[in-house]
Amino acid sequence: MATKREIILTGDRPTGKLHLGHYVGSLKSRVELQHQHEQFILLADLQAMGDNAGEIEKIRQGVLDVALDYLAVGIDFSLSTVYVQTAVPEITELMSFFLNVIGFGRVERNPTVKTEIRQRGLDDGVTAGFVVYPVSQAADIAAFKATLVPVGEDQVPMIELTNDIVGAFNRLYPESTLVECRALVPKGGGSRLVGIDGKAKMSKSLGNALYLADSPNEISKKVKQMYTDPQHLRVEDPGHIEGNVVFSYLDVFDPNQEEVAELKAHYQRGGLGDGVVKKRLEELLQEILRPIRTRREQYAADPGAVIELLKQGTARARERVTPTLDECKRAMGINYF
Amino acid sequence: MATKREIILTGDRPTGKLHLGHYVGSLKSRVELQHQHEQFILLADLQAMGDNAGEIEKIRQGVLDVALDYLAVGIDFSLSTVYVQTAVPEITELMSFFLNVIGFGRVERNPTVKTEIRQRGLDDGVTAGFVVYPVSQAADIAAFKATLVPVGEDQVPMIELTNDIVGAFNRLYPESTLVECRALVPKGGGSRLVGIDGKAKMSKSLGNALYLADSPNEISKKVKQMYTDPQHLRVEDPGHIEGNVVFSYLDVFDPNQEEVAELKAHYQRGGLGDGVVKKRLEELLQEILRPIRTRREQYAADPGAVIELLKQGTARARERVTPTLDECKRAMGINYF
Repeated sequence: MATKREIILTGDRPTGKLHLGHYVGSLKSRVELQHQHEQFILLADLQAMGDNAGEIEKIRQGVLDVALDYLAVGIDFSLSTVYVQTAVPEITELMSFFLNVIGFGRVERNPTVKTEIRQRGLDDGVTAGFVVYPVSQAADIAAFKATLVPVGEDQVPMIELTNDIVGAFNRLYPESTLVECRALVPKGGGSRLVGIDGKAKMSKSLGNALYLADSPNEISKKVKQMYTDPQHLRVEDPGHIEGNVVFSYLDVFDPNQEEVAELKAHYQRGGLGDGVVKKRLEELLQEILRPIRTRREQYAADPGAVIELLKQGTARARERVTPTLDECKRAMGINYF
Repeated sequence: MATKREIILTGDRPTGKLHLGHYVGSLKSRVELQHQHEQFILLADLQAMGDNAGEIEKIRQGVLDVALDYLAVGIDFSLSTVYVQTAVPEITELMSFFLNVIGFGRVERNPTVKTEIRQRGLDDGVTAGFVVYPVSQAADIAAFKATLVPVGEDQVPMIELTNDIVGAFNRLYPESTLVECRALVPKGGGSRLVGIDGKAKMSKSLGNALYLADSPNEISKKVKQMYTDPQHLRVEDPGHIEGNVVFSYLDVFDPNQEEVAELKAHYQRGGLGDGVVKKRLEELLQEILRPIRTRREQYAADPGAVIELLKQGTARARERVTPTLDECKRAMGINYF
């Protein structure tokens, strides 16, 4: 095994099962990264409460579901340290110090948060926790001295804010040894897979998602529902591939891209029915999701064992961040006792 | 000893030595309250960082100085639990949950914080921590299930916000047993002693304070500097007692209020010089401050012993809030392990 060179911090808000968009956008890459780097994965239950405090049961269930999805796709809990955010209070302590070294205006002006508030229709109802969650995220990253944070392009301002906070902290308390991090943005900016409706990115709230836990029947049904070309009424008509969800999935999932190119040309000149391409896609998706689902079911049969794995990961995470917090307190000189 | 009926939470931001305004406004009353009630007193170093993160040495020194002032005035560290805020991370954890149950607008609109931001000239430069510090304060109070919080009238909105947060938390998580608290506002609204310049309340930043640690010489000098009646140039002239700092102090400190009334009448009709009343006041203040200073010097000779007392108080505070935090986590259902 190669030397683990980078410290990676990544994770998810546990508000529900993960879907194919997560798989393509982050999970697959985590499975690879865990072999080359030291990878910490947080189940951000505290941050999830920022706009879901009233649906705590969803978060509680989400913690188990997301852990199952991780195990199902091949995240190895002995290679990656998977932990539950609220069970690592040292990170919350670090956040409480960070809140005092960064201007409120700098946090509030963060474009990522502004967009999220708008997208979720929170505006007036936004909680104090949601407004300051970038500071919580900065603590998540800094507590592990993470050097690399996989994010989509839209999240890059969060990484910049994290580095501003770390920089401010290190300047105020020169003995501090917190480190700045880099964003790891996937090629193409990490834009997520489109939903089966073709209207927006795949998302639980939009009901356009294909879940890793979906049954073969559900997959089959969802592929049949996929948006293609509404003007492509007869097989012999020329069809459009732009905005056609089926082709956009074949681009992502089909290992034989030469055949995909031929299918596209055929579809565009007419004579290729939606049913044929959908069948090809369904077979591919069933093949990808079958082993994932099987592993998921195996782990789901013993939730106690999954919780035990999370407990161990959380203990490892605490061991790792405790020295960082102690260092910070020493640098601040508030190690009174 | 009577049954301790109320749980009191009070404290100070440790940004410097305490002065006569603190003594009159809160310290004296704490010495009495500790016998009748269960009293927790926090040294709010985390909140002090909200607008003093760059002056951590001042806060560090302030923790020791304020503890010395407490001991000097007769706060008994075995009757009152005196603790350091950053050393009780359970309260920070509770704050992190509270942030998610209260609307940001509700926190931001808090008149107390608005006024403080204006008074300290922070405005644009205000930190994220300063903006959300009422939530931190709510956690301080709720963590101890405090029922009574001594505050000045201007701080009453903070208590209302605390109760809003506690109410929201209990509604969201019905198994929670957090309790609401009442403000204990002293007669007269708890307005602080005026400074020796007569212009504003006694305050470190205005340089108009008489410190509990002041030497006899400093006291003498400050009494001589006290603002009286600038038009009262000759002894035989009638003088004004309104806005006259010396008489306002005699109102507060002189046990013989009949004589004070006579002195006032004499001063107003003329024939009583400032020197005479100042001498009377100085004697009173020297008498009040002498035993305080003596005790302060005794404790100051062994700072290690004071730190040890704070360590013990902090340990008792942690013992007390840990079950509250556990209860909250159980009520939220995030006791995963």
